[in-house]
Amino acid sequence: MNFPSKILEQAVGAIATLPGIGKKTALRLALHLVQDNSEKTERLVESLKLLKEKSKFCKHCNSISDADICEICANSSRDNGILCIVESIRDVMAIEDTDQFKGKYHVLGGVISPIDGIGPGDINIENLIHRVNQDETKELIMALSPTIEGDTTVFYISKLLQHTEIKISAIARGVSFGGDLEYADEFTLGRSISGRLPYKMSS
Amino acid sequence: MNFPSKILEQAVGAIATLPGIGKKTALRLALHLVQDNSEKTERLVESLKLLKEKSKFCKHCNSISDADICEICANSSRDNGILCIVESIRDVMAIEDTDQFKGKYHVLGGVISPIDGIGPGDINIENLIHRVNQDETKELIMALSPTIEGDTTVFYISKLLQHTEIKISAIARGVSFGGDLEYADEFTLGRSISGRLPYKMSS
Repeated sequence: MNFPSKILEQAVGAIATLPGIGKKTALRLALHLVQDNSEKTERLVESLKLLKEKSKFCKHCNSISDADICEICANSSRDNGILCIVESIRDVMAIEDTDQFKGKYHVLGGVISPIDGIGPGDINIENLIHRVNQDETKELIMALSPTIEGDTTVFYISKLLQHTEIKISAIARGVSFGGDLEYADEFTLGRSISGRLPYKMSS
Repeated sequence: MNFPSKILEQAVGAIATLPGIGKKTALRLALHLVQDNSEKTERLVESLKLLKEKSKFCKHCNSISDADICEICANSSRDNGILCIVESIRDVMAIEDTDQFKGKYHVLGGVISPIDGIGPGDINIENLIHRVNQDETKELIMALSPTIEGDTTVFYISKLLQHTEIKISAIARGVSFGGDLEYADEFTLGRSISGRLPYKMSS
């Protein structure tokens, strides 16, 4: 690319370091901002600075938070006895959107993946064990992705807790609501058969 | 979306004002930045600030520039007599990448589009006419998109210049190199036949 301006080239380079954004998209965004007459760039710059400088990670669950302890962990009406273990903050937001879970969360920040050089020490397992012992947790719900790495992580955590009385469960996998059986992949359909549930007639 | 942090929500909102970036992508980018340990966010913020505060639009051609006059307009080895009329700065960059044009450019910043409320006064036509008279331009190459709006703009400019001796041409349209005839759209193929060229045997 022949850039007409060094400043533009620098901005495009910086935008293109973001995941999933290539040089062409970065150029489109940079030219949009430079030609924009509203305060859009100023607002963007301010909010990114604030995001980097002021946002914190909750000391209990490692989710993103404005304070030292996040709103969910600080909420005394939520059940302290059930912890939902997730990989990322986006998973917390997805589960919160369902309005079906009233316990607390623990964000691992990744899953064990030897091939990527991520061991148990690289994700938040140590403080999970510490928290579980301190909070007298009764149940851990594993909501990790059903991959080899996710399964390994679940296995590792359950091994660490095998001498405790903590119940470990995993979220149900199966054919999604509204999904046609013929379009479900074999693995999901297979799991939904082996994990079948007794039929309950609603009264 | 249930945001665990107001600062995150604000950042996601600001990122999602960019064209082609929705809330989900914005969230992915914001979480990437907040979890990134390098200086990526700082560099991004700095380069966006610089882009907005320091970049200028060339006084001659309206392209983006670090100085009052852009490098292309300031380059005395380029032909002042031929002006290539384009819609946007991205078009300048695309043509410069071909290395086939040694004249100068004029960026309109849009095309006449009554349906979007863009009239001749909203794009850089007035200073084009002024420039053409002052620089004793001999030829204008119209490199606008072949839409109704593009054609209208070409028509409008040629009307304004009809009493001058300036030659007006348009870039050739046709089947692209390496393109199969059967996959070309009818309009392009039709134009490439009506605009056929005499065959020249290369010596």
